[in-house]
Amino acid sequence: MTADARELAAGVFEGDRRAVARAITRVEAEGPSAASMVRAVHGRTGRGYLVGVTGAPGVGKSTLVDRLTGVLRSRGRTVGIVAVDPSSPFSGGAVLGDRVRMQAHAGDDGVFVRSMASRGRLGGLSRATADAVLVLDAAGFDVIVIETVGVGQAEVEISRAADVTLVVTMPGGGDGVQALKAGVMEIADVFVVNKADHAGADRTAAEIEAVLRLNEYGPADWRPPVLRTRASEGGGVEEVAGAVDRFRARGGDGAARRRRARVQARVRELVSRRFLEHAEHAALEPGGFDRVVDEVADTVIDPYTAAERILDLAVRGAAAGARGPGSRREAG
Amino acid sequence: MTADARELAAGVFEGDRRAVARAITRVEAEGPSAASMVRAVHGRTGRGYLVGVTGAPGVGKSTLVDRLTGVLRSRGRTVGIVAVDPSSPFSGGAVLGDRVRMQAHAGDDGVFVRSMASRGRLGGLSRATADAVLVLDAAGFDVIVIETVGVGQAEVEISRAADVTLVVTMPGGGDGVQALKAGVMEIADVFVVNKADHAGADRTAAEIEAVLRLNEYGPADWRPPVLRTRASEGGGVEEVAGAVDRFRARGGDGAARRRRARVQARVRELVSRRFLEHAEHAALEPGGFDRVVDEVADTVIDPYTAAERILDLAVRGAAAGARGPGSRREAG
Repeated sequence: MTADARELAAGVFEGDRRAVARAITRVEAEGPSAASMVRAVHGRTGRGYLVGVTGAPGVGKSTLVDRLTGVLRSRGRTVGIVAVDPSSPFSGGAVLGDRVRMQAHAGDDGVFVRSMASRGRLGGLSRATADAVLVLDAAGFDVIVIETVGVGQAEVEISRAADVTLVVTMPGGGDGVQALKAGVMEIADVFVVNKADHAGADRTAAEIEAVLRLNEYGPADWRPPVLRTRASEGGGVEEVAGAVDRFRARGGDGAARRRRARVQARVRELVSRRFLEHAEHAALEPGGFDRVVDEVADTVIDPYTAAERILDLAVRGAAAGARGPGSRREAG
Repeated sequence: MTADARELAAGVFEGDRRAVARAITRVEAEGPSAASMVRAVHGRTGRGYLVGVTGAPGVGKSTLVDRLTGVLRSRGRTVGIVAVDPSSPFSGGAVLGDRVRMQAHAGDDGVFVRSMASRGRLGGLSRATADAVLVLDAAGFDVIVIETVGVGQAEVEISRAADVTLVVTMPGGGDGVQALKAGVMEIADVFVVNKADHAGADRTAAEIEAVLRLNEYGPADWRPPVLRTRASEGGGVEEVAGAVDRFRARGGDGAARRRRARVQARVRELVSRRFLEHAEHAALEPGGFDRVVDEVADTVIDPYTAAERILDLAVRGAAAGARGPGSRREAG
């Protein structure tokens, strides 16, 4: 942990908005500054409630999140929002998105919005999102919303990292439920059919409920409610906030188990990334990793044999006392 | 490599459909049978041309792939299809999907379709897909289509694993391009605006072309064409096949570099997975990994410190000669 990360963390703990913004910028970067920042704030995390909101593009997630934020604010709770939305290339990207969205809560220190752009760095997005959530948690926000667009694996994983997950859909000729692929049905704690004034809302809600009856998704003590909203006018949003509260208020160790699974996934991901760095840059002789890859590309060996060979070399290299992972220390 | 994997591989090399189906079932499973199967077929891979097709649900990808298959067949080429489409819970899932789709090419030994269901096993899907492609490649299919639904990170990564990537969209009130998030724009070698008879097709195509003019995506020697299709009637599909051929026929080392990047990603993923197994089940004392995770969950230590500690232990554990990764040999 570096001195300036500690200083920045002190600002974060006081809820200083510029410090929060700068700390998130640090965790967005790849490399030692992210680790340093997380080290500095981690001791103060674990108090915020993480609400994941996911769904296909165009269903009205952002509007719903804005309205939900309004409801939570009216109940005296502070809200941090991480919007994982790469944005259309037309819109000017995430920065403009932040500015537009902040206007709804302009001048309200109890709301902080940050968009994370995936452009060109898809790989690190889930790590950066998780770390940005830690910063907002350490800054003392009561509720932290993680808004992800799309219904792919990454979105599922990001929203699985929440304490409660809302899946948002909208009516539309069967597409509403068709678009809710199996992986997404399974992660929803609360379903929201937005644009409920559109034709087909009843059918969409009924279809989701039919799927829920046929399957056993989620915690045993919770049947996911299917709520209807007209987020653009605020309709039904109080009920969404109520469902989140009920989910949170359940007894049992479900919440703790979910939190532990989230932490485990984090640690696994970091271990695997650090080990790959070790294998590629320290343990094998220079170019050694690349040569093994070349052999696979030339179908001389298969990828599984290649992986075993690299694993043996990277661990035995350390056994010879040459350069273990511990010898590479954080520079920044 | 086990004896029965070798026997199955012999059937795959002969293009025996039942052997191909059984070999793919093996690589779909987690564990040593997948590795064994890939080991047995890998030496015969590297000849098929991999065509990735991705896009949001409902744009007509499957229909396009079916029609494209027809065009390729009329040119004498054999086609293997891996459809990564978890399917709606209503449709009966991937198995029914296979049966319905196979009917279009029933009795044609030059076409093989396999759907990969993601249900409950999102994590291993990209590995299983890559291995299924290897099986079809070893079976001698000239073209292997990898069809993925959605526009999330996983889909992007899966289709990036192809030699050429088609991104399919459709007209629709601005949503067409809005839905093409930055990460997807960047991976497209060919854009297809399907349902081109719908209102707004011109605008959607023009918007994509505008984005392409403003950005430099993809290989320097290739500007992605924006093609219009009416896949349900076959309109424009010949042109799509033509664009794929032109992309393939380009000179330079682009194709080799892409293949190498794909192999590298494969090897990295396998190394990291094997190392995690080693760390969790062999290198640390029993329960050691879990205890570190618990400390992070209790915010006693941060995830980065935890990862470093595990890395040190897992590599040093092997240094002490106790149980290195090489001591665990494939059982099957």
